[in-house]
Amino acid sequence: KRARDYGFDFGVLHPGQWNAITDVQGVKVGHQTVIKGDSVRTGVTAILPHAGNIFQEKVPGAVHVGNGFGKLAGTTQVEELGNIETPIILTNTLSVAAGIEGGIDYTFSFPENDEVRSVNVVVGETNDGYLNDIRGRHVKPTDVVAAIQSAKTGMVKEGNVGAGTGTICFGFKGGIGTSSRKLPEELGGYTVGVLVQTNFGGVLQIDGMPFGKLYGQYAFKNQLESADGSCMIVVATDAPVLERNLKRMAKRAIMGLAKTGGIASNGSGDYVVAFSTAEGLRIPYDSDGKELLEQSMINNDYMSGLFLATIEATEEAIINSLFAAQDMTGHQGHQVKALPIEEVLKHMSKD
Amino acid sequence: KRARDYGFDFGVLHPGQWNAITDVQGVKVGHQTVIKGDSVRTGVTAILPHAGNIFQEKVPGAVHVGNGFGKLAGTTQVEELGNIETPIILTNTLSVAAGIEGGIDYTFSFPENDEVRSVNVVVGETNDGYLNDIRGRHVKPTDVVAAIQSAKTGMVKEGNVGAGTGTICFGFKGGIGTSSRKLPEELGGYTVGVLVQTNFGGVLQIDGMPFGKLYGQYAFKNQLESADGSCMIVVATDAPVLERNLKRMAKRAIMGLAKTGGIASNGSGDYVVAFSTAEGLRIPYDSDGKELLEQSMINNDYMSGLFLATIEATEEAIINSLFAAQDMTGHQGHQVKALPIEEVLKHMSKD
Amino acid sequence: KRARDYGFDFGVLHPGQWNAITDVQGVKVGHQTVIKGDSVRTGVTAILPHAGNIFQEKVPGAVHVGNGFGKLAGTTQVEELGNIETPIILTNTLSVAAGIEGGIDYTFSFPENDEVRSVNVVVGETNDGYLNDIRGRHVKPTDVVAAIQSAKTGMVKEGNVGAGTGTICFGFKGGIGTSSRKLPEELGGYTVGVLVQTNFGGVLQIDGMPFGKLYGQYAFKNQLESADGSCMIVVATDAPVLERNLKRMAKRAIMGLAKTGGIASNGSGDYVVAFSTAEGLRIPYDSDGKELLEQSMINNDYMSGLFLATIEATEEAIINSLFAAQDMTGHQGHQVKALPIEEVLKHMSKD
Amino acid sequence: KRARDYGFDFGVLHPGQWNAITDVQGVKVGHQTVIKGDSVRTGVTAILPHAGNIFQEKVPGAVHVGNGFGKLAGTTQVEELGNIETPIILTNTLSVAAGIEGGIDYTFSFPENDEVRSVNVVVGETNDGYLNDIRGRHVKPTDVVAAIQSAKTGMVKEGNVGAGTGTICFGFKGGIGTSSRKLPEELGGYTVGVLVQTNFGGVLQIDGMPFGKLYGQYAFKNQLESADGSCMIVVATDAPVLERNLKRMAKRAIMGLAKTGGIASNGSGDYVVAFSTAEGLRIPYDSDGKELLEQSMINNDYMSGLFLATIEATEEAIINSLFAAQDMTGHQGHQVKALPIEEVLKHMSKD
Repeated sequence: KRARDYGFDFGVLHPGQWNAITDVQGVKVGHQTVIKGDSVRTGVTAILPHAGNIFQEKVPGAVHVGNGFGKLAGTTQVEELGNIETPIILTNTLSVAAGIEGGIDYTFSFPENDEVRSVNVVVGETNDGYLNDIRGRHVKPTDVVAAIQSAKTGMVKEGNVGAGTGTICFGFKGGIGTSSRKLPEELGGYTVGVLVQTNFGGVLQIDGMPFGKLYGQYAFKNQLESADGSCMIVVATDAPVLERNLKRMAKRAIMGLAKTGGIASNGSGDYVVAFSTAEGLRIPYDSDGKELLEQSMINNDYMSGLFLATIEATEEAIINSLFAAQDMTGHQGHQVKALPIEEVLKHMSKD
Repeated sequence: KRARDYGFDFGVLHPGQWNAITDVQGVKVGHQTVIKGDSVRTGVTAILPHAGNIFQEKVPGAVHVGNGFGKLAGTTQVEELGNIETPIILTNTLSVAAGIEGGIDYTFSFPENDEVRSVNVVVGETNDGYLNDIRGRHVKPTDVVAAIQSAKTGMVKEGNVGAGTGTICFGFKGGIGTSSRKLPEELGGYTVGVLVQTNFGGVLQIDGMPFGKLYGQYAFKNQLESADGSCMIVVATDAPVLERNLKRMAKRAIMGLAKTGGIASNGSGDYVVAFSTAEGLRIPYDSDGKELLEQSMINNDYMSGLFLATIEATEEAIINSLFAAQDMTGHQGHQVKALPIEEVLKHMSKD
Repeated sequence: KRARDYGFDFGVLHPGQWNAITDVQGVKVGHQTVIKGDSVRTGVTAILPHAGNIFQEKVPGAVHVGNGFGKLAGTTQVEELGNIETPIILTNTLSVAAGIEGGIDYTFSFPENDEVRSVNVVVGETNDGYLNDIRGRHVKPTDVVAAIQSAKTGMVKEGNVGAGTGTICFGFKGGIGTSSRKLPEELGGYTVGVLVQTNFGGVLQIDGMPFGKLYGQYAFKNQLESADGSCMIVVATDAPVLERNLKRMAKRAIMGLAKTGGIASNGSGDYVVAFSTAEGLRIPYDSDGKELLEQSMINNDYMSGLFLATIEATEEAIINSLFAAQDMTGHQGHQVKALPIEEVLKHMSKD
Repeated sequence: KRARDYGFDFGVLHPGQWNAITDVQGVKVGHQTVIKGDSVRTGVTAILPHAGNIFQEKVPGAVHVGNGFGKLAGTTQVEELGNIETPIILTNTLSVAAGIEGGIDYTFSFPENDEVRSVNVVVGETNDGYLNDIRGRHVKPTDVVAAIQSAKTGMVKEGNVGAGTGTICFGFKGGIGTSSRKLPEELGGYTVGVLVQTNFGGVLQIDGMPFGKLYGQYAFKNQLESADGSCMIVVATDAPVLERNLKRMAKRAIMGLAKTGGIASNGSGDYVVAFSTAEGLRIPYDSDGKELLEQSMINNDYMSGLFLATIEATEEAIINSLFAAQDMTGHQGHQVKALPIEEVLKHMSKD
């Protein structure tokens, strides 16, 4: 059961069919979970903006840095050119290189990319080194390609899966989470989907309820606990939005993170990657002599609904990652407990 | 009575003596309220980083833009040089020029600034044009100087005062609000103080409780209400923090805004100005042949407590502005009601 | 005679008809020179992106900060929304407030702007305080409106005029300069026009010839001379380019400045404001229920020619300001000599 | 012979002993040239900020993006934390992953880094795919470690070496180049060193002389030639400068590039990485309970000399790369000629 099934509703807008990033038409998600022996607890999650050759048909994209203690690959080119040309890869901190190699391998696997000599792979990461033997660099480029190739639409597995296999959030087991919002037709009827890899700390709040404080588990409680960690956030929309307004949406995702009690601590790599799947905004690799792009895009004045949708979907995606995650034992015998849902419900019923 | 007096506590850290930006030693706040006849409902609020000649003894400073639909003056120089050299002036959107003139007049009033020919005045604004005849530009440079000269330490007047005289927040009367947090000695014992000028929208949340939704007043409720407006946020700290880490603190203030339900809508000018009052970090105007500055500053690793303090103090300052504000009638007979505190308490007691 | 008339050609592309920013169709320039008595040597220059109501029909715009020791007003909103809604005003450092007031007055002068309550005026400045009694703040909002209203197309007056009346460049009299480039039809046939207000230092180079060094007048020559000062640069193009690519063009303007020997010294406010006059890219103030904008814009792949054009036109505009400027005596009897063109030609003939 | 030996002097300041980045005390440079068979023409160049364990003793650092069509790894963390914790690695576009792996391997090779689980490797690249079988990804992590381990002080090999083995600049063979400037004692006596990997286009200018134009080889000459390519620039200084002022220096490096006729074309990845070797500014990995860093740093007012030094050294380093490079034949039989120095001297003597 997901958070919403217990009665939490996170705002005023409504989710799409799957309450997942895949509600944005064409978006596919794939996981490759890498668990081996006692110590390897990691993996890869890949988000595909569309089903075709992304390099040949790039999508408008943007990156926002909430807190930049992280190794996100590909940022400056996304910023300069305003587009994304590969699947977005999530993995662990020391496997970014594997993510890049896998992204290149995947791009090279298309015959029509035969002459391509420059690929800007977007790879995000969080540090799963408490549960995972991260120094072993157990994610391989083949795992990355496998994650991409297994991507599909529909329901998305959450919790201890893919890039979320070994992550920790608010002191509980974190992982992958997702959610979506569909704007009412009067506001354009667009969908915003969010997928997160949660590995950060703070003072957990669940739809406003200060659970971390009530439960007595939060950052700085004894001036000891660290709030460090990271959160990778991917925002997708079918709204026709170019890079500037995608960046504005990306900024709102950190506002959604804030509502869960995250504080973007010093050691956190909190990044948001946002893209639009609107077909009319695709950027062809081969401009084929066409100097002009004809594009139909949303007026600034109509962005606020998309901002609200981004905030709500991010908040819910993070909480979903906690509800879906399960206890995990890993590297050096470290154990991390899942969110005690019974306790959550107890405090909730007092509301 | 302020929000805290009703039992809201906004997080896990504790406020300073006044629960105000003035808890940061040396910081002074002055208001000039400009109310005339039926239509003029505006004013100026000035925040002084220290009691001396700020131009001669600049303070480290930074600006973060949450959403830039606004006219904040002075940003690029603060960014380039990392310092602030005037009081921070808050006023209405069309009075930024008056703010600049007043800031220059004040700077020129010091005999030792006799040769100064360049002053970077930091002026923020929100749009009070619903309650105030803003096109009349009723704020004058003399009002700005008056606000600066009336600045004092201790308790800060909140609500319909100074730059908050005519503002609206979440559909209720907004205004000036302030709050502070003092870190435990183990985390350095530093103080963070925040002052806000609230004029924005979204789905109001009070310490987690979704009041806007419960009360039925929020952005997009009928696809009609605008979430537009702006929020100016000033963050002060006595922690020895230079511009890079001040900017990181400034970013967290928007996370505090997010927790109140703000969405940084398209039409919002949400800005944060942050500065440090640490005496060892003052930047002398006249370097007097001294090529090197000796500075003692906080290591990145110790910033997270200050981040949490900024988030909490911003959230509380915004709510304080709502609790303090009172009904206001103004321009063209427009009326805005204060937050119905009785209703708030009713929903709170159900918790 | 302008630099080009002496045989300098600054690159490989060709200027438009006037070799001025006004070669970009629709752009108009107006000057208001303010000279009074012995001490007042200042003024205003206004650049109008088009002949209509700019507030109602905004143009795509961007700002790049070369070095931000300056008071440019309006940057954050241009950055956030990607557009410019007023004439661009240039004046002196302490008259930015007058520039804002004048820009608002002008905007309010259109009956269809009757309900407008928020105007983002873009005002740039350089410091003419050596020749001008800058502390007297002699520029008034009426001067700003006069500059705007006198704007016209065709030839542009250069040198000691408008905002260039009291400026100094490389130790010689600076001022207003302008130039343009028209791309060959194969590269799109677009025009790029540049206007500069020159007030900066370094080691003057004229079309590659190191005149400052040969003539023995340059920054740090005796570890005494300051390279401080500023340069405001306005870039216009009729190419259909939105804010991201306009910002990239703006960055190239600083590369043009570099070729004249400018170093963007610590005390310099070197800013570039760029806009597109392409009619298809206008942003209506009143979106009138139209959620989508249909826009036709240049593919990234076709930008490089515009970059080269921007570099060349900026270099030439700066040198033009020096060739046009004349000796000036002003505040406190200060005198600044014009560039000694005879000396320049002597060194040139040795080439 | 280097450019200076032919009489070019690039400005008004003087180089250090080696006229190389290694004039900044402690900086070491290592090359690993990877040439195999007919098609592999690539390599790695590593720049070490100091001789110790860089991860344990980080240096203040900054990145500036001239044009971001590139894959520079590590930027966001440098930006967020203001420091660099590994050698700076330069290689080809598709070998950034190898650069990251090699940088991690090197960091892990220090026993005192045994517990390290997060490493931010800075890897820059340019695309050598015309002369090199770049899709083969022939650079291996072991090559990266070899480059680092071979690093030394003193003279630096330039031209077709390391990461410059297969690069092309202004249509001639490019490669590695370096230069330095030492400020006079009155300006602090600091040294600025620059190293470049040149692979870009435009209209070549050599110390002001428009050689590209005179020789008839330049971008857009026949509306055919591409100016694409990239330039990686590394700036080192012993001046005590933190990240904000390092970023300002980095911006000036692009001004030096501009003086060589580079235009930062659309397809160019023009990045600058800057760091300070000042021992007093080292950032310890293990803060060891020390909350405060005591730092002595240069006042903004004294930065301009360092700006000029950066511009001059970058200009000269780029030209040095051209003078040192030699004809190269590579992938698919492609040939690139070195700069015809005789022709250069012919045009020079006419000056």
